[in-house]
Amino acid sequence: MKAAVLRQYDETLENPVYVNFEDVSDPTIKGPNDVIVRIGGAGVCRTDLHIIEGIWRSKVELNLPHIMGHENAGWIEDVGTGVTHLKVGDPVICHPLITSGHCLACRRGDDMHAEDSEFPGINANGGYAQYLRTGARSIIKLPKTLAPKDVAPHTDAGLTAYRAAKKASRHLLPGDFAVVIGAGGLGHIGIQVVRALCAAQIIIVDRADMALKLAHECGADFSVKADGGQVEEVLRLTGGKGAEAVIDFVGEGDAVSQGLAMTRNGGYYYIVGYGGRIDIPTIDMITSEKTIVGNLVGTYAELIELMALADQGKVTLATKEYRLEDANLALHDLHHGKIRGRGVLIP
Amino acid sequence: MKAAVLRQYDETLENPVYVNFEDVSDPTIKGPNDVIVRIGGAGVCRTDLHIIEGIWRSKVELNLPHIMGHENAGWIEDVGTGVTHLKVGDPVICHPLITSGHCLACRRGDDMHAEDSEFPGINANGGYAQYLRTGARSIIKLPKTLAPKDVAPHTDAGLTAYRAAKKASRHLLPGDFAVVIGAGGLGHIGIQVVRALCAAQIIIVDRADMALKLAHECGADFSVKADGGQVEEVLRLTGGKGAEAVIDFVGEGDAVSQGLAMTRNGGYYYIVGYGGRIDIPTIDMITSEKTIVGNLVGTYAELIELMALADQGKVTLATKEYRLEDANLALHDLHHGKIRGRGVLIP
Amino acid sequence: MKAAVLRQYDETLENPVYVNFEDVSDPTIKGPNDVIVRIGGAGVCRTDLHIIEGIWRSKVELNLPHIMGHENAGWIEDVGTGVTHLKVGDPVICHPLITSGHCLACRRGDDMHAEDSEFPGINANGGYAQYLRTGARSIIKLPKTLAPKDVAPHTDAGLTAYRAAKKASRHLLPGDFAVVIGAGGLGHIGIQVVRALCAAQIIIVDRADMALKLAHECGADFSVKADGGQVEEVLRLTGGKGAEAVIDFVGEGDAVSQGLAMTRNGGYYYIVGYGGRIDIPTIDMITSEKTIVGNLVGTYAELIELMALADQGKVTLATKEYRLEDANLALHDLHHGKIRGRGVLIP
Amino acid sequence: MKAAVLRQYDETLENPVYVNFEDVSDPTIKGPNDVIVRIGGAGVCRTDLHIIEGIWRSKVELNLPHIMGHENAGWIEDVGTGVTHLKVGDPVICHPLITSGHCLACRRGDDMHAEDSEFPGINANGGYAQYLRTGARSIIKLPKTLAPKDVAPHTDAGLTAYRAAKKASRHLLPGDFAVVIGAGGLGHIGIQVVRALCAAQIIIVDRADMALKLAHECGADFSVKADGGQVEEVLRLTGGKGAEAVIDFVGEGDAVSQGLAMTRNGGYYYIVGYGGRIDIPTIDMITSEKTIVGNLVGTYAELIELMALADQGKVTLATKEYRLEDANLALHDLHHGKIRGRGVLIP
Repeated sequence: MKAAVLRQYDETLENPVYVNFEDVSDPTIKGPNDVIVRIGGAGVCRTDLHIIEGIWRSKVELNLPHIMGHENAGWIEDVGTGVTHLKVGDPVICHPLITSGHCLACRRGDDMHAEDSEFPGINANGGYAQYLRTGARSIIKLPKTLAPKDVAPHTDAGLTAYRAAKKASRHLLPGDFAVVIGAGGLGHIGIQVVRALCAAQIIIVDRADMALKLAHECGADFSVKADGGQVEEVLRLTGGKGAEAVIDFVGEGDAVSQGLAMTRNGGYYYIVGYGGRIDIPTIDMITSEKTIVGNLVGTYAELIELMALADQGKVTLATKEYRLEDANLALHDLHHGKIRGRGVLIP
Repeated sequence: MKAAVLRQYDETLENPVYVNFEDVSDPTIKGPNDVIVRIGGAGVCRTDLHIIEGIWRSKVELNLPHIMGHENAGWIEDVGTGVTHLKVGDPVICHPLITSGHCLACRRGDDMHAEDSEFPGINANGGYAQYLRTGARSIIKLPKTLAPKDVAPHTDAGLTAYRAAKKASRHLLPGDFAVVIGAGGLGHIGIQVVRALCAAQIIIVDRADMALKLAHECGADFSVKADGGQVEEVLRLTGGKGAEAVIDFVGEGDAVSQGLAMTRNGGYYYIVGYGGRIDIPTIDMITSEKTIVGNLVGTYAELIELMALADQGKVTLATKEYRLEDANLALHDLHHGKIRGRGVLIP
Repeated sequence: MKAAVLRQYDETLENPVYVNFEDVSDPTIKGPNDVIVRIGGAGVCRTDLHIIEGIWRSKVELNLPHIMGHENAGWIEDVGTGVTHLKVGDPVICHPLITSGHCLACRRGDDMHAEDSEFPGINANGGYAQYLRTGARSIIKLPKTLAPKDVAPHTDAGLTAYRAAKKASRHLLPGDFAVVIGAGGLGHIGIQVVRALCAAQIIIVDRADMALKLAHECGADFSVKADGGQVEEVLRLTGGKGAEAVIDFVGEGDAVSQGLAMTRNGGYYYIVGYGGRIDIPTIDMITSEKTIVGNLVGTYAELIELMALADQGKVTLATKEYRLEDANLALHDLHHGKIRGRGVLIP
Repeated sequence: MKAAVLRQYDETLENPVYVNFEDVSDPTIKGPNDVIVRIGGAGVCRTDLHIIEGIWRSKVELNLPHIMGHENAGWIEDVGTGVTHLKVGDPVICHPLITSGHCLACRRGDDMHAEDSEFPGINANGGYAQYLRTGARSIIKLPKTLAPKDVAPHTDAGLTAYRAAKKASRHLLPGDFAVVIGAGGLGHIGIQVVRALCAAQIIIVDRADMALKLAHECGADFSVKADGGQVEEVLRLTGGKGAEAVIDFVGEGDAVSQGLAMTRNGGYYYIVGYGGRIDIPTIDMITSEKTIVGNLVGTYAELIELMALADQGKVTLATKEYRLEDANLALHDLHHGKIRGRGVLIP
């Protein structure tokens, strides 16, 4: 099959060619619960840039050559002998994690904290290719309203935004405020999820006008340009008190300290983006009684919930389509902030 | 002052004159935390019909002559010596209960289960009058966007619907269904609250076309006419399984058994309307693992939340205005199903 | 193998021989996820008496001849080709339900509401035998501290009591009261679970002195003899208000109405036992804002939690051992109230 | 009256005399909701040392001369005209905060986040004296089993430990682990609360043998000496995964980073002690999905809950009594680690 293959790291991200478009051998069924998916679309994620930079080398077992692509959707191509509930040709979306389903975390529905798991595109070959091997437990059938290429980025970008926004929605009451920092690929989904799941008023903070405009279309009530005065502006909008929930999709630079400063006493700061540090005196945590919440991608059940929102038109993904052979263009466009919403590679 | 006074019960509700429009003495400040409110509007509630019928005699201490009206809003007219945070002329809405605030339930925010309380319009004189005495702890200041006469029914009809719908929204996830039985005064608010607070799809069940139309405008996704086949139709819409939440604003006749039959295994049946009985074998509760939830009017904090929804235009009340001297007309219109939404008496 | 087989119903329960001890063919591995367990102990449950009476015929597909026994523990005897995490000889306890694990309920950890499932001992052959076929997803390995015969009844009696008591413990705060109605096979475990999981004071209500004594040993704070004045006595103990949680392991006769009367306004009535009816006017549910909760057996994860309590000595099961060939004796002893705690058949 | 008065800061804490025992004017009733309490005991808290050091000057309005003492219990001496539910001589314990009760936080039971409040002993005169002025909303009547001097430290030390431990207990399930860092004045209460409110196994981490011994008496299951290898030892005890909850009563030095390292993926780190910093890369929060929770003193309702635990003997306070005139000795003993549990000044 054809695939876009990463053969070497580039710490500077200045190399014009990150991945090579080439022929590789097809993935095959190895165990009774394996599934082969013909890729309809694979999302292009900032994590892929971090993989190219080599950042993830120390976090997971990741060997070159490597096929990236952890946001995958398509059609069932083949199944193992133990898989009876899926059939060839079914349109599907893939939860990013492969799990056996036997550990206590899995049995509680908390797949992401499974004792053993694989993450295709991260520590196994992913979907920058024509075919992908994954597990039966990762597969969700799509309703007819949703085409694989239109929903692929939901499996990670959407699902991570969904999980953080859902956590916030569980305590946000009418009259409360939710600040969303960053209206990019994840943030513009996060806004729609907050809008769909609760009645909090939404304040978007971003430095780019394009992002603020997208956020407005997604349902943000107030826009704050991140031009240096954003903390003061959020405090002004919230009556001097800050927001009950701050969801930070940036997570680096000043975003973290500013996000905490925008959080009301007794409120919650959800950290989704990464690259920076949380650094706060313990006395400030005590006197403010704030809570800082780390957020991973969501569970299988949460991806089903997100697909229900997509199916009902309550969450729409802004995508930009690229041919698989143009993967380098998509990655460079992402790196240089030229993608509105989320890039998708189509084989 | 002028008031509409109940002087005798009418078990048949066939008497053309339920209440007398007459002069009575003004209420006065008696304690340091008392407040006098000049009524801007008083909601007309089915409970008032039940009071006229004599049903509530056995539940609370209710003596004739009695001034009904437990849904009140208006302007501060006078305050006791201990009240410093309210001033004459403030536009306000009145939480229906007067409490001292010292018992454990109050200290947990659960005002409705206070050890000692008064309920003007039920066991004390209410707002079918020019003035009302209540307590400082019952008063919520209104934002400029909201006129007292337009929001008065929120204090009971709205707040009761809000509380039940809010409880349901805490467990309703995308992909879930909420059935609302009855789209009258409470139900049409309940639909809007479910719509605002979660992403469940809403099925309205009512026998009146006028109510189904109102429900559709309020945001119901599916309409089911209560013509005998409503249980089957709800099961069909929910894939044969029933809804994760059923909110029953009727609570009498077949509504209860049908509501329980529309509830999915593991789901919740919220009972708000009354007049009938719950009657179910214990084995059916065990094998289905359903939960039946009784619902009272909401707390003070919940009325603030509801006012936030009203202020933001997320919940709109359909009202029909009557002059206070036409209280009998309003009560008869309610009794004969001629009011779309909620009647309001204006002094 | 040897098994105790039910060949005919007995609606009167007066027949001295309910089941026949006889030779039947061994169960065999049929699918890749099947598991054969050599039975170490099988609990004898009141539901078995209800099966003999024929009550369950209308609820599930149950065909004679039938091997009862839904509370099973033992050792792994054989596994299907897809099972790699279990090995022959492992001491195990069996969750009562066999599920495929693919439906949304399973993926949320809510196994008991799986779309497709089997319940050995109810709608498939159970553990009144030397061997049992079940599924890999039902198996929990036992720690060395726990012998199969000593914990077998935990799979249903214990797990059902655990689930109801755990639900109650989630809202019971220090200063609150929990009433447990019935200190038999389930109730004596329920008391220990409430004791372990929260700080509520526990009131046991039972008509038998033997049960009250067992309850006291299990950690009940107050004993109330069910001699007619039990509602008044519970109200007296709770300052006239009733208990925040009532867990009813009887569920028939007067227990239901009395249980509801013992429940405080705003409190929860958990129904576990069955045989009777819930019958209450809707107005009483509204004014009291009580909640009625149906309870099924718990999830796989909850059985792991219960095994942790057993392993740590926080929950102890009172058992009476019988040889498998004495199954009729065990069933008659249960029927006539002669078992303290729970009977267990040992092949 | 007699009082121990702070007249100057001592940043070194080396001055032998921190406070002066002297005559000051009695506090008097100023408003209708004021209450004068005759002090039975006033707890001596590490925060008092921090006040003496001058740390709190920048956090609150604190003027010298100042009477410290924010953990007070005693008997009602006098009440304002608006107070009808308390009478002279009632034994009482004082919630540390004075609030008006009108803001939304108060109405939700969340007194600690009141918009306006006073904190006697911090920003008003406290209980290192014979009498204290506080508000009626701060007063909880004591049961006969509890003497004021024996429970005074519960109002802050106990209540703060209770709130953090209660939060943890809401998610701790059987089989889970709770690590408590520091078994001093707060920690030894925290252990007892965790023990009473859930079934988690408790691991105590402390560097002092006296504290480990006290922790063991309080119900800790495992003791870990903080000698450098404590993270490894906690990981070993928890199967290499860390604890579902870590409650850090130290909050300075290495405790914070070690506490986070002891927290399991998906787990909660509760920060109670202060003096240090939280400093962690955002990527580590994301991949671990940990939550960091700041903790303030608890609510009025929570102090009632804690008194229920004390009344039932489920939480016992280790105290060391000092005469009020020996306040300097008590403060020095605390500073030099010579108090087992909590010091109490008795006028």
